[in-house]
Amino acid sequence: MKDFFVADAAKFDGETITSFFAISSFSVREKKGGGGQYLALVLSDKTGSLEARMWEEFASAMETCGEGCFVKVQGQISKYQNRFQITLARMRLAADAEVDVSDFVPATKYDVSEMWSELRGYVDGFSNEDLKRLVFAFLDDEQIGGAYREAPAAKMLHHAWLGGLLEHVLFLVRICRAAAPFYPEVDADLLVTGAILHDIGKVKELTWGTSFSYSLEGQLIGHISIAQGMLREKVKTLPDFPEKLRILVEHMILSHHGKYEFGSPKLPMTPEALLLSALDDLEAKMQAMRNEFGRDAAAGKSGAEVTEWVRSMERPLLNTKAYLGPE
Amino acid sequence: MKDFFVADAAKFDGETITSFFAISSFSVREKKGGGGQYLALVLSDKTGSLEARMWEEFASAMETCGEGCFVKVQGQISKYQNRFQITLARMRLAADAEVDVSDFVPATKYDVSEMWSELRGYVDGFSNEDLKRLVFAFLDDEQIGGAYREAPAAKMLHHAWLGGLLEHVLFLVRICRAAAPFYPEVDADLLVTGAILHDIGKVKELTWGTSFSYSLEGQLIGHISIAQGMLREKVKTLPDFPEKLRILVEHMILSHHGKYEFGSPKLPMTPEALLLSALDDLEAKMQAMRNEFGRDAAAGKSGAEVTEWVRSMERPLLNTKAYLGPE
Amino acid sequence: MKDFFVADAAKFDGETITSFFAISSFSVREKKGGGGQYLALVLSDKTGSLEARMWEEFASAMETCGEGCFVKVQGQISKYQNRFQITLARMRLAADAEVDVSDFVPATKYDVSEMWSELRGYVDGFSNEDLKRLVFAFLDDEQIGGAYREAPAAKMLHHAWLGGLLEHVLFLVRICRAAAPFYPEVDADLLVTGAILHDIGKVKELTWGTSFSYSLEGQLIGHISIAQGMLREKVKTLPDFPEKLRILVEHMILSHHGKYEFGSPKLPMTPEALLLSALDDLEAKMQAMRNEFGRDAAAGKSGAEVTEWVRSMERPLLNTKAYLGPE
Amino acid sequence: MKDFFVADAAKFDGETITSFFAISSFSVREKKGGGGQYLALVLSDKTGSLEARMWEEFASAMETCGEGCFVKVQGQISKYQNRFQITLARMRLAADAEVDVSDFVPATKYDVSEMWSELRGYVDGFSNEDLKRLVFAFLDDEQIGGAYREAPAAKMLHHAWLGGLLEHVLFLVRICRAAAPFYPEVDADLLVTGAILHDIGKVKELTWGTSFSYSLEGQLIGHISIAQGMLREKVKTLPDFPEKLRILVEHMILSHHGKYEFGSPKLPMTPEALLLSALDDLEAKMQAMRNEFGRDAAAGKSGAEVTEWVRSMERPLLNTKAYLGPE
Amino acid sequence: MKDFFVADAAKFDGETITSFFAISSFSVREKKGGGGQYLALVLSDKTGSLEARMWEEFASAMETCGEGCFVKVQGQISKYQNRFQITLARMRLAADAEVDVSDFVPATKYDVSEMWSELRGYVDGFSNEDLKRLVFAFLDDEQIGGAYREAPAAKMLHHAWLGGLLEHVLFLVRICRAAAPFYPEVDADLLVTGAILHDIGKVKELTWGTSFSYSLEGQLIGHISIAQGMLREKVKTLPDFPEKLRILVEHMILSHHGKYEFGSPKLPMTPEALLLSALDDLEAKMQAMRNEFGRDAAAGKSGAEVTEWVRSMERPLLNTKAYLGPE
Amino acid sequence: MKDFFVADAAKFDGETITSFFAISSFSVREKKGGGGQYLALVLSDKTGSLEARMWEEFASAMETCGEGCFVKVQGQISKYQNRFQITLARMRLAADAEVDVSDFVPATKYDVSEMWSELRGYVDGFSNEDLKRLVFAFLDDEQIGGAYREAPAAKMLHHAWLGGLLEHVLFLVRICRAAAPFYPEVDADLLVTGAILHDIGKVKELTWGTSFSYSLEGQLIGHISIAQGMLREKVKTLPDFPEKLRILVEHMILSHHGKYEFGSPKLPMTPEALLLSALDDLEAKMQAMRNEFGRDAAAGKSGAEVTEWVRSMERPLLNTKAYLGPE
Repeated sequence: MKDFFVADAAKFDGETITSFFAISSFSVREKKGGGGQYLALVLSDKTGSLEARMWEEFASAMETCGEGCFVKVQGQISKYQNRFQITLARMRLAADAEVDVSDFVPATKYDVSEMWSELRGYVDGFSNEDLKRLVFAFLDDEQIGGAYREAPAAKMLHHAWLGGLLEHVLFLVRICRAAAPFYPEVDADLLVTGAILHDIGKVKELTWGTSFSYSLEGQLIGHISIAQGMLREKVKTLPDFPEKLRILVEHMILSHHGKYEFGSPKLPMTPEALLLSALDDLEAKMQAMRNEFGRDAAAGKSGAEVTEWVRSMERPLLNTKAYLGPE
Repeated sequence: MKDFFVADAAKFDGETITSFFAISSFSVREKKGGGGQYLALVLSDKTGSLEARMWEEFASAMETCGEGCFVKVQGQISKYQNRFQITLARMRLAADAEVDVSDFVPATKYDVSEMWSELRGYVDGFSNEDLKRLVFAFLDDEQIGGAYREAPAAKMLHHAWLGGLLEHVLFLVRICRAAAPFYPEVDADLLVTGAILHDIGKVKELTWGTSFSYSLEGQLIGHISIAQGMLREKVKTLPDFPEKLRILVEHMILSHHGKYEFGSPKLPMTPEALLLSALDDLEAKMQAMRNEFGRDAAAGKSGAEVTEWVRSMERPLLNTKAYLGPE
Repeated sequence: MKDFFVADAAKFDGETITSFFAISSFSVREKKGGGGQYLALVLSDKTGSLEARMWEEFASAMETCGEGCFVKVQGQISKYQNRFQITLARMRLAADAEVDVSDFVPATKYDVSEMWSELRGYVDGFSNEDLKRLVFAFLDDEQIGGAYREAPAAKMLHHAWLGGLLEHVLFLVRICRAAAPFYPEVDADLLVTGAILHDIGKVKELTWGTSFSYSLEGQLIGHISIAQGMLREKVKTLPDFPEKLRILVEHMILSHHGKYEFGSPKLPMTPEALLLSALDDLEAKMQAMRNEFGRDAAAGKSGAEVTEWVRSMERPLLNTKAYLGPE
Repeated sequence: MKDFFVADAAKFDGETITSFFAISSFSVREKKGGGGQYLALVLSDKTGSLEARMWEEFASAMETCGEGCFVKVQGQISKYQNRFQITLARMRLAADAEVDVSDFVPATKYDVSEMWSELRGYVDGFSNEDLKRLVFAFLDDEQIGGAYREAPAAKMLHHAWLGGLLEHVLFLVRICRAAAPFYPEVDADLLVTGAILHDIGKVKELTWGTSFSYSLEGQLIGHISIAQGMLREKVKTLPDFPEKLRILVEHMILSHHGKYEFGSPKLPMTPEALLLSALDDLEAKMQAMRNEFGRDAAAGKSGAEVTEWVRSMERPLLNTKAYLGPE
Repeated sequence: MKDFFVADAAKFDGETITSFFAISSFSVREKKGGGGQYLALVLSDKTGSLEARMWEEFASAMETCGEGCFVKVQGQISKYQNRFQITLARMRLAADAEVDVSDFVPATKYDVSEMWSELRGYVDGFSNEDLKRLVFAFLDDEQIGGAYREAPAAKMLHHAWLGGLLEHVLFLVRICRAAAPFYPEVDADLLVTGAILHDIGKVKELTWGTSFSYSLEGQLIGHISIAQGMLREKVKTLPDFPEKLRILVEHMILSHHGKYEFGSPKLPMTPEALLLSALDDLEAKMQAMRNEFGRDAAAGKSGAEVTEWVRSMERPLLNTKAYLGPE
Repeated sequence: MKDFFVADAAKFDGETITSFFAISSFSVREKKGGGGQYLALVLSDKTGSLEARMWEEFASAMETCGEGCFVKVQGQISKYQNRFQITLARMRLAADAEVDVSDFVPATKYDVSEMWSELRGYVDGFSNEDLKRLVFAFLDDEQIGGAYREAPAAKMLHHAWLGGLLEHVLFLVRICRAAAPFYPEVDADLLVTGAILHDIGKVKELTWGTSFSYSLEGQLIGHISIAQGMLREKVKTLPDFPEKLRILVEHMILSHHGKYEFGSPKLPMTPEALLLSALDDLEAKMQAMRNEFGRDAAAGKSGAEVTEWVRSMERPLLNTKAYLGPE
């Protein structure tokens, strides 16, 4: 069992710890000025990652361990150029029974079961029976539903953690439900159906084990078209599903990125598609802001100044509440 | 008093009517094949416009009337190429006392006083006293407040009618208030302040009399920078107004178009600026959709097919509810 | 039976003809200077269209005929402002038995059966049995195969005629087969499969009756995604069809427009997808050139000068061979 | 007092010097191969910066000094990989009385008083009394005028030195005055007013102490809108200042970046705004060229070849005069 | 000899005039409501163009005259829809001896000989003998020099009149000479050489007879590359012309449009190329402004309001001096 | 004579070799932790490059050798961080007689003479005698023809090796000849002429000695305009060469990059120019794919996964044949 996490390094400065990690990077380097080799590693768990050095007696470790392995190590925590690192005295491959994979990949901070129940509750409340059976056909599909509860929403950017897809969808559904009454043109059930299914292709686009990545199908087809294919196949299994609804849901999936250059083959043409696309974009941007503010807070910044340049948003940001300070 | 409106032409097909109009277009043309001249006019009121022809005895009318005048006419309604027109028997300049300008320019279909009260009510509820006195300083300013209740929100596109600015702002405030609770980073009073003041420059950018137009200052400075100047001047009159709040409100005004190419000199950098910009854009697009669907319905289309290409949105649209039909 | 075609108008200048046409445009206009109404029409057949006027006795025609109808007319051909027109003496609705729809819509000048055989022959020669059965599953599908032989390739631009889809595909397949040997990275069967299936969605995107148009599904989903859906459904019916081939063919369909802004949700990432996309684009552009040169030749121009500005290519063109003249 | 400057390192190669510097970068590093730590620093003054290493006895220095501090050091100059560096024997915090800040930040090479006089002289010569009192209201404003003489024109790019704003403005005014007579549409006083005030917002956008940075207001509002606000406030203090002139000056400020994507909320619409924007852009580009040529010359290059790729101009450059050589 | 010009129509309202014109547009139309045909023409001279109608006895005119012909006409001037037109009583082909082509195409209002002398004078003053003989090799080339004095600078936009090329170049040379002293990096002789030769390709790109057009070579090669070719050929004739100067002049020609999307195959990389490109662009824009203001003044507008949208500049404009009014 | 090549390092792991190299990078570094200096080098030959270190006795080497020199070295091969390096015991400048430059720069793997013959054979087969003598005038020009057989086609991207220009052209000519028969509008001799001459400017744009670079003329003029100039000069030497052919060939050269933003001053307007531009782009992209797949194979990857992101194509790639595996 793992009882030291990277995020706690500050509490152990100067101490020797024993714990389990995943190896994110592994290389053998030559000591400068001669004098042999050493191991340079990056060790990770779900809370972050740590540079590690092993200067001596690493022959056996070198033979058995490598990138992606889980290892048990003993070493001393120290601070170097303002970052913690660990100098290893011992390292060996961990046995499967010793590690719980959930310790090593980031995960949503919300309860998956509760989120799942809340989401299903909204579908239960649909007055449109066709859309209700369509959405449940996905959620009740053992394979899809299971993956839906686990999948991250991205490899790196917003919601890049286990359960991130469900978390993103639930938050989006909530704002969709709040916004729909202001637009009489919008069919709320249809909108929520779009919100629940728009990113369903991510269960096949992404892979998640000890790290997050794109599947080959994800790279060649993309989650938009994967989702469209899944919709087509699912609809085939629903007797007498209205063709018009199939087209409208399919259109929401295809257009939800809102622009051609973001990989949507169609622009949003219906009220629901337009609203979904706008709110999905808003959710992603507000979440990106939240990440930046959280990162600054974690780094001990007060938030009273603007952040560094945020590449994904092409601007720096300002945390209003931190800037205004306590009232 | 005006008792015939353009929108009612169908009810008077073939009949002779007497009413008042504004002249939108006025020209003298030569009859084809020789035989003298005739008057070709476009007559307007707040419900639309109508082609008019005067074939005889228009010498006196020609001398006294012209573009922008209000006139009293008598003529016969008929249909030509699927559109109604009117053949004039008589036309003379209207006396000021005979016309009520509000009959001739389009106006919001909502009650201005009720909208105004609702808006003020939201401000009354602010917990931030500084923002409350700032917003009321604008609303209670006789000149600004009066113009705010009258101004259209645009010359041609969305909300191009008297009261359109207030209507647009109120709808935006409502969705802002509904969305804010979903984003804990957002200061709701600040957001609503931004929503109420973001377009305040339009009271000087636009002119509205018998038609809508841009003022010279509107064209050279633009409503964004006009609003910023108004904010600066208003803040000067408020003792001890916090500089930080001034900067945050000014930033929302400057960034609310969301992109440089739409004339915003700054991109939204705070949670409130980002949310305001996104919801303002959403409101405008949903309103544009509503206009298109309304136009199709007015033209007697069922809505079961996609609309014509909509230039401002660079795509055709589909009215979901009309397409799905009555449930 | 139709024995006068629009393209032959010059031979009948000043004569009275009797023939069948489709009505492309229909309106009632008032005679200038008063004196009642007349009918202004555009009459079409597969070879072009002709302005028509009916000055007298059109009451019964007006009641029974309209846009999209087939009519039998009698009238006199004349030339007005360098274009032929027809002054109608008589017009009545045509009976179904009197018209052969193929007289009224443009069609490929190649023999459909021969093209179909040539195309099937190439598939017969595939060494990859899986791709062979996939393609034949489409071609032998009665509904799809039938539509494939009829469909135009576009509403207006290149290959906008019956059989245009098949013609476009066949020409593309030929150049693909010629180019493949120069690129050892390319699997020729896979490339030809992509060429045959890339536009298959057009059989549902377009409608063709008396004119060409987009279906509602075509507008909301688009032929790229329709094709992808058709592929998914067809593959489901083929036992043990290799998943890898499905992904590769799907990728070619999704990426064949080559750029996001042209509606492709993926960029070409395989040698076959890249080659297909490049040659499809080349075919379309060379065909557009051919159309321009043909249009100029039809208008009696020598071709020794550059053409007018061609909007779809954003430049004028020069017909080299016409410019150089006979050798 | 500081008697060694970074730019003179070559004269002291191998010698031991004692001098004052600002610390631009400060870090503690571990010696490779073990054996303890050392200090890695970058030391700067107004003429440039120098890598420094302190291998021994830096405990007390480490405790008291850090980034942004002024220090007194003793060390030996040497050359490493073609660049000079310094190996420190001693380092301590400098007392305030020991340092003159102007030794540590780059400054204009021109005399500020002379530039100021020349600029005022041009205003004195205005025939338009309103513009004259407007500009002097800024220049004579103690706070603004003082900052105007000190401020850099940018954080990093062109004119990033103390007095850079004044220097940039003066050079721009000169070329404006030279160009105006060629364009009879241009009001020269108005043009020069625009040149003097266009960047006035930089006195609040930038901060300058031991280094240059952006203020929070600078980042959220930007120098264009800050300048507009300053103009509005200043005009309020001038009795009967003509509204038309206020609009024209405001327009020049708002449009001087020339394009929306460069942060101008308006495009130049008057002859003066167009000319100002073009010449401002020209000045910036010619100054960027000058910097590149100067950098190459400082690096000992002959200038007979093109420079490296210049990122800000997206191209490499060629110094014509160096290329042609002495005549 | 021509003694009535289109620009003087107002003075002849209602009168019958006899004069010569070029036919810009010629068509035979049918009278509405039957009753035969009439001629609809546009007649032009260097001061403008005029709609013309010939209702009777035009059989002989129709046989002999056509677009591009010079004709002698007699007719009555009248005003229709605020524009003058002429009703023709007689029209016949003009004999060559009767017309002076210079009456029919717009021409510079400056004296060509004086402009030519001024330009040559600047070259005479070059201190660089190589550049002097290069430029004179062009100006003294009988064919090139002659065309240079006649050519327009464009088909339609700025300086679209005979002598426009020379006029544009001379104005550009003047501002170049004024600006050069402010940039010590700039070789003034080289800059002026670039100004004189940059558009030399227009003498072959454009054709000018009774109207302005593009030559086939102009369309396929363009004036930039034509100029480059002319430079290469001319340099071949100059013994020992320095290769470095050839490259620098060639670079100015190739880069003077300043951007790839404006057809420049190279961006300006030398001080002279950058300055030339900036000032050439400025000249074109100021001239476009001047045209707009002139057009408004000609239409009797006061200039106190902004102009209509100017397509080539993507904005409306304001004539400052007219707006401010007489001082 | 060179008998060890970088590509063979694996076979010599741990052994001492003696061989010749070009020095690509040369620097003196200080040993970490003090203790003097060492030499850090990169040694190259046509098969690749190798990091080298010289720790001792390099004083004489340091004085005589430098970047760009050919050296003879003795040293021991070892592996460090998965890459081979060499620790030098001895190094001295090589004598001219000892090195064969062709050992040090990458070169085409095809036989230059055979390629040259094949190319000339195609020209021999032209039926157009004018084009034949034009192309031979280039190929038979001793200086141009010689350079043509040697030149690389680029500094870094596709075909960046000696003979690369000829190889690229030959492959392009082959696909041009295969494609031409499918487009009856295309004059095959003209197309092939364009293919052979389109990049001829590269013989002056690039320099190739011990490494590849751009000449100053290449940077200021570019290979497109250089080629155009060469064409002009060559045509001058051919009596009675048809002007029309000169324009058509010149147009192909100027437009072959296909877009303004790629440096083409003209868009392809003729069938030959369009086809040439499309096939040239295709060749470059397919070659870029080939390079990526080759690089992955060289790195021991199976090719069953997508490649890394390929910057020049803005996407990752998939090697279909490797992905599908052996049949």
